[in-house]
Formats: sequence, structure tokens, C-alpha cells
Amino acid sequence: MQKINLSEAFGRFEELWSPKIIGEVNDCQVKLAKVKGEFVWHRHEEEDELFLVVKGRFTLRFRDRDVDLEEGELMIVPRGVEHLPVADEEAHLLVFEPGTTLNTGEVRNDRTVDSPERLY
Amino acid sequence: MQKINLSEAFGRFEELWSPKIIGEVNDCQVKLAKVKGEFVWHRHEEEDELFLVVKGRFTLRFRDRDVDLEEGELMIVPRGVEHLPVADEEAHLLVFEPGTTLNTGEVRNDRTVDSPERLY
Repeated sequence: MQKINLSEAFGRFEELWSPKIIGEVNDCQVKLAKVKGEFVWHRHEEEDELFLVVKGRFTLRFRDRDVDLEEGELMIVPRGVEHLPVADEEAHLLVFEPGTTLNTGEVRNDRTVDSPERLY
Repeated sequence: MQKINLSEAFGRFEELWSPKIIGEVNDCQVKLAKVKGEFVWHRHEEEDELFLVVKGRFTLRFRDRDVDLEEGELMIVPRGVEHLPVADEEAHLLVFEPGTTLNTGEVRNDRTVDSPERLY
């Protein structure tokens, strides 16, 4: 049981699109992710997913619209909703989602991270 | 499905120690709370609880130590662990916890909020 300074935690890794676990809240996990560029269209059949922008800007593309998020803004993508995460410049995200969530959802490719690392 | 700007959301209410629900992630809820002064010693038997300081400073007192949190710092209090939230000046917190979590845990008093309001 320790406090976590987000800035210090983001300093512990460099990889893009590779979420790191920093803790659990019952069945959910708290993860940090550095992102830049375009990810892959995907959805999570059973899991809602919260994205909070800690640094930079981040866009969630949906099939019918784009939502631009700035620092201090969050969005919850409900289960079943297809989304494409995009960031023109590197952005730092805090993600809150069930521990069963696979980063690429129903898609499997070279971006898929089956066992995210733990930072703490 | 909408984005939430935390600063705008905190502007929607004034009450202290009265968490407001801003969304759900499966069985967990995302809440905002404004706090100032001392709360009550309590624990949650079944629920872990994450506190992220969005603005100000916040202290979690435990039976064996105090943990001071600043903006951009978070801590997860595991289920069963007694804690006393304290803030010398008004602080703004983002809280992630199971939807079953009662703010005062096993204690019932005038601080207990049985049905937190929804902001969105």
C-alpha cells in the first residue's frame, strides 16, 4: 500500500501503446499508457473503459464522430462500442477498466498485449 | 456517452464530503468529491477505494501512519483497512470504487450518503 505520483510513474517506462498496471480496485485495474499515432479499431464486448488524459491531447474516434480530449478530461467508452484511439503527439493516459480487458479488444495483432507489466 | 471535463464537473456542486457519480465502469463507479476538514474513521469490508487528487492536498490517515497526497498523486486503500480522510484546505478528489461502496463504510452517521447524486 503506497501512494503513486503519476508523473513519477510515467517516467518509469517509454513504450507506446503498452499499458502498465499500477493497481487494482476490486475486479478493475488502473493502468497507465503512453500513446502516439493511431491504434487499431476495436471494441470490448464485456468491458467499459475509462480514459483520463493526464498529459497532452488524445482523440477517441467512433464510427459516427471524433471526440477530442485534453488534459483533465475523461471519457468512458461503454462495452460493445467500436473505437479508435489516436494521438497526434505523445499523450499520457490513465485507464480504468476490468482486469479482463485486452487492449486490442476482439482484434489480435502485433499491438496486442496479453499480460501487461506491473509498474509497482 | 460524452466526455467530461473535470474542472467543469467540479464546478457543478459545492457540498463537501458528498461524492457525486460521474460514470460507471462495469461494477465500479467514478465519483468526484470536494473535501475539507476531517471525515470519520471507517473501513470498507468488501471494497478497495482509489483516491486521486485533482486539486489541492489531501491526507489519508491510517492507524500506523499518515500519507500526504498532492495534485497528481493517487492511493488505493485496500478493503478492510481503516482510514481517515483529512484535508486542511478544500481539495478535489476523483474516486474509483465499486458501486456498492458507502462513503462512511461500516459507520453510519450524519456524513453517510446512501444514494449519491449523479452529475451527468
